[in-house]
Amino acid sequence: MSKDANTIYVGTKPAMSYVLAVITHFNEAKVKDVTLKARGRAITTAIDVVEIVRRKFIKELKTAKIEIGTEELQREDGTRNVSTIEINLKR
Amino acid sequence: MSKDANTIYVGTKPAMSYVLAVITHFNEAKVKDVTLKARGRAITTAIDVVEIVRRKFIKELKTAKIEIGTEELQREDGTRNVSTIEINLKR
Repeated sequence: MSKDANTIYVGTKPAMSYVLAVITHFNEAKVKDVTLKARGRAITTAIDVVEIVRRKFIKELKTAKIEIGTEELQREDGTRNVSTIEINLKR
Repeated sequence: MSKDANTIYVGTKPAMSYVLAVITHFNEAKVKDVTLKARGRAITTAIDVVEIVRRKFIKELKTAKIEIGTEELQREDGTRNVSTIEINLKR
């Protein structure tokens, strides 16, 4: 996953942390789009975040694009494949 | 979520069970499209399933549409919102 100012990486924190990040981003940066990236179990959190923002905070939010993929993780005992998701949001 | 012959519900079984279901479906039913539905933690499994089928079994598989949403679950202590995903696959 590449770094980008308009990208928010969703990990193991509670969904509300990322909800706040998305809302702050839309308010501060005057941008009209944000991309959420997540992998593995955090994918569910990423989708929760989108749904909470859309239902509770930014009604006009649109999921412009959802892409899924696979990433290879290097581990001591070899490599492991993990699923990824990228959700592009526009307001 | 509505019932449909071309729909596979992804739940708590290992991803490989659903991978098999998708492959069998494409082989037997002569259909060109299948929809995977999942909610909550099973969303990650659904994406794993798509990625395994696409990378290991049906190279020409396309994710035609990915939709996310929210469902209200009735519980003893009230209602709880759970995120859902629908992934439409075409070969």
